[in-house]
Amino acid sequence: MYDRNNVFAKILRGEIPAFKVHEDEHTLAFMDAMPQSDGHTLVIPKVEATNLFDIEPEALGELIKATQRIARAVRQAFDAPGLRIIQFNGATAGQTVFHIHFHIVPCYEGVELRHHSRDWADKEVLAEHAERIKRALAELDR
Amino acid sequence: MYDRNNVFAKILRGEIPAFKVHEDEHTLAFMDAMPQSDGHTLVIPKVEATNLFDIEPEALGELIKATQRIARAVRQAFDAPGLRIIQFNGATAGQTVFHIHFHIVPCYEGVELRHHSRDWADKEVLAEHAERIKRALAELDR
Repeated sequence: MYDRNNVFAKILRGEIPAFKVHEDEHTLAFMDAMPQSDGHTLVIPKVEATNLFDIEPEALGELIKATQRIARAVRQAFDAPGLRIIQFNGATAGQTVFHIHFHIVPCYEGVELRHHSRDWADKEVLAEHAERIKRALAELDR
Repeated sequence: MYDRNNVFAKILRGEIPAFKVHEDEHTLAFMDAMPQSDGHTLVIPKVEATNLFDIEPEALGELIKATQRIARAVRQAFDAPGLRIIQFNGATAGQTVFHIHFHIVPCYEGVELRHHSRDWADKEVLAEHAERIKRALAELDR
């Protein structure tokens, strides 16, 4: 079922670049290349899992805890008054990459979310946003 | 920060009815009264937490594992080809009840999701849907 040539598997192997904000033994977090809002970040596990239904509960628990930590940094870095956590299962639900991932989507007053997976963001902007989140993570860890 | 008079706190205390699909020591799952699609279910912890930012990581890990289990039953009960997990933080993000909850939203081919928190569902329909999910949970536990 799991396709080792999906885009996130390639990012995990370093075959495709990404604007990373955090990496540890179990988890990778990086900027969504087609963000719905400024600061839109993805958190993925290093285990091979397509979606919610084929990830081990323990790995899922660790993944949401990592997502919580990154979300706190995103909120701080972008001073976001609202934040959505979203996870798609199946193409019918809007899943486009078949490696499980949690979306962290900051929400801003009066700003409509952009459409999911539609427009590529400017790379320099993504790089700057990743740096902001990394700095917030470092501050939160202090 | 946590308001003990929020609707989900009242449901947890039994002061307001809900169409429950599962309850254990740590978790309650019940039908969303204003569903975005047939089978839309909510999973909440019994700890007092407003959102992702004030729940203990361990409790959050247990909550997502419970959500995974319920989502599997929802998928089976409604034969849903897609399913979204959504969690709102802050009114700006669309949060309307300030007790942390994961939405389980089944997605169906060619069926648009209804608007979040807009229309009340028929109570008999919700009761029947809750029964379906309970049966699926019992089957999955066998």
